[in-house]
Amino acid sequence: MNPIIELQKSHRSIRKFKDQKIPRDLFEELIRAGQCAATSNHVQAYSIIHVVNPENRQKLSELAGGQAHVAAASDFLVFCADMKRSTEAAERVGAEVVRGMTEQLLVASIDAALMAQNVAIAAESEGLGLCYVGGIRNNPADVAEVLKLPDHVYPVFGMSLGYPDQNPEVKPRLPLETILKEDYYDDSRDEEQVAGFDATMNRYYSERTGGNKDTNWSEQLKPLFTTKLRPHMRDFLTKRGFEMK
Amino acid sequence: MNPIIELQKSHRSIRKFKDQKIPRDLFEELIRAGQCAATSNHVQAYSIIHVVNPENRQKLSELAGGQAHVAAASDFLVFCADMKRSTEAAERVGAEVVRGMTEQLLVASIDAALMAQNVAIAAESEGLGLCYVGGIRNNPADVAEVLKLPDHVYPVFGMSLGYPDQNPEVKPRLPLETILKEDYYDDSRDEEQVAGFDATMNRYYSERTGGNKDTNWSEQLKPLFTTKLRPHMRDFLTKRGFEMK
Repeated sequence: MNPIIELQKSHRSIRKFKDQKIPRDLFEELIRAGQCAATSNHVQAYSIIHVVNPENRQKLSELAGGQAHVAAASDFLVFCADMKRSTEAAERVGAEVVRGMTEQLLVASIDAALMAQNVAIAAESEGLGLCYVGGIRNNPADVAEVLKLPDHVYPVFGMSLGYPDQNPEVKPRLPLETILKEDYYDDSRDEEQVAGFDATMNRYYSERTGGNKDTNWSEQLKPLFTTKLRPHMRDFLTKRGFEMK
Repeated sequence: MNPIIELQKSHRSIRKFKDQKIPRDLFEELIRAGQCAATSNHVQAYSIIHVVNPENRQKLSELAGGQAHVAAASDFLVFCADMKRSTEAAERVGAEVVRGMTEQLLVASIDAALMAQNVAIAAESEGLGLCYVGGIRNNPADVAEVLKLPDHVYPVFGMSLGYPDQNPEVKPRLPLETILKEDYYDDSRDEEQVAGFDATMNRYYSERTGGNKDTNWSEQLKPLFTTKLRPHMRDFLTKRGFEMK
């Protein structure tokens, strides 16, 4: 196995960091690596807010559901889907711009994700750890206010970055054959494969907690889907100019 | 610069491939590397359709707007956002599942993108080249039919993979300071920076074409935003169970 794939396969979220700062030149190198990810039609529909102000870090930590590492990590980034810069550039050269298309929401969210994953790999290649923070979408309007995000820019997720002060196990993934399908979507073996994965996850949780956590993948998903997941997102996005037309 | 970041910074889309197949064990290794990307709440809200059938490859090539590499590359993948598997798993253990939330569309699209970018990096680390194919969203209903995608699964983008038979230049990116902002969204220098980037891109296009292509970033964006970008996406997603509630 080559060292890059080995690195990818060793990924786990880091939520506890050493009190050691990432040097500025390395930090910039990570962002540049991020920018080199593929981008739809070269639009580069993203902005990153690097949150330095300690008060704002504390606020975001609370807004994300009380995740201490958001305030404590060496660096915290908010990856934003940004349809403002590119559409304004097109307007300045005479385009009558159409905004608010569903497709634009997808393009910008995917662009932000591709670039973030490049930042993540670059960071890990330098011995850093990270944690994606989807909790930033718990209170996106408040987050947008703290970061002074204009219309046509929305916070997709955050990322805590720093030198790891923990070494958690790699979390198992679904079997390859469950997520990889040949020629067409065949889910005839899904139930059986998910049952097998539930057993894997049951062992994983049990071993991590000395037998105190008796759960599995399906059970862990249950609370996530029985409630309306972040029901404010539609309104929030609409108000910010992502109308999903 | 470490070799991983160096690899990332050398990324460019490959659209011409050698007539050489990716060995199956390497192919599977790439997908496994993809699975190790971060995933929101461990949902793993994606499926990959590996399109092997030559007729279907030809169909997809046409549906994606006539991109020959879709049919000609060693392998072609369609990355799908998949909310079916996980919600059904939760249902089987007794959850009364809520579907169609906007947030679920985001979670699944982002999950698919993070995993795809891991596949991309893994592929490039093995000397392979690739091209993301957003054109799969030109005719998503037809694509879904070819791949027999059920409800709650939608094709996010494709990816052509193979051994490069071309060596294009790396395409410039916006200046770091344009996309990276400290503490809050300050776009007071955007216009000036975009003008600088337009000059960079003008030189890039001119050099690549022996002076025959006089355009820049803003001009290239113009046709993209003056039309309704893939106006079918909202209806398509709604019909497939991604109602964006």
